[in-house]
Amino acid sequence: MTRTPQYSEWLEIALEEARTGRGSGGIPIGAALIGRNGELLGRGHNRRVQDGDPSVHGETAAFKAAGRQRSYSETTMVTTLSPCWYCSGLVRQFGISRVVIGEARTFFGGHEWLAENGVDIVILDDPRCVELMSRFIFDHPELWFEDIGEDGEGGTR
Amino acid sequence: MTRTPQYSEWLEIALEEARTGRGSGGIPIGAALIGRNGELLGRGHNRRVQDGDPSVHGETAAFKAAGRQRSYSETTMVTTLSPCWYCSGLVRQFGISRVVIGEARTFFGGHEWLAENGVDIVILDDPRCVELMSRFIFDHPELWFEDIGEDGEGGTR
Repeated sequence: MTRTPQYSEWLEIALEEARTGRGSGGIPIGAALIGRNGELLGRGHNRRVQDGDPSVHGETAAFKAAGRQRSYSETTMVTTLSPCWYCSGLVRQFGISRVVIGEARTFFGGHEWLAENGVDIVILDDPRCVELMSRFIFDHPELWFEDIGEDGEGGTR
Repeated sequence: MTRTPQYSEWLEIALEEARTGRGSGGIPIGAALIGRNGELLGRGHNRRVQDGDPSVHGETAAFKAAGRQRSYSETTMVTTLSPCWYCSGLVRQFGISRVVIGEARTFFGGHEWLAENGVDIVILDDPRCVELMSRFIFDHPELWFEDIGEDGEGGTR
């Protein structure tokens, strides 16, 4: 795994989405789906709060925004936060080739499982992403635990 | 795992959704999320074709329709077809307790992985579900393989 300037550029899109989500009162997680030639296919952010819709995580929003695609080979999902099982399942099912992750400190999702299943995983460990989520979880723990289906004590409710 | 009349009743809802989806030109997979007391929380069907939206599988549609829930403990996802990795990830992430599956013959998704992770799995092996999917896959193989991100030869594209 190497960091490249391109990955950082892609993360800026996801981070911008996360900040947009935060600005509208939502959970600050953003993502973008990048095509095989580096083109932007779709971008989006978590909309649980804004739309009352628990199915829209950053990654699923970006996937939806990209519309119907016949193949996800050589595409990259870039996300501000380690993908949860739901979003990890999305990546595996559709054969998205790479996941670029802003940070995996505040939440550790399914990225190791994806790596075991052949997905290229890049963790950028970006301090801005850590700060954004840390502050959000501190300010709105109930909302955060609702979003990941946990009880705040390490278990599901 | 036991079959109960209740599971069969729930499957009827999912099957009705699948048929509605088929009737509107879509991929015939339906699902419903059932609450801990047997109440219907949400129902829906695959809408890839109808909405041009690859993120709406039967299970994610039912999950979305149920709206924000603080807990999915003791809920049941009933679906006409074995859940793909995307939908299996949804079940695992949100701690949905049980998955009732119409059939797992035409497609074998992540239900064994869910069972390993403590989810109660019930496969009803309903011939109507098998027939619905078999016919659809025969008539529209390209659409089906697009929906599961495969190339029709066992690999991802």
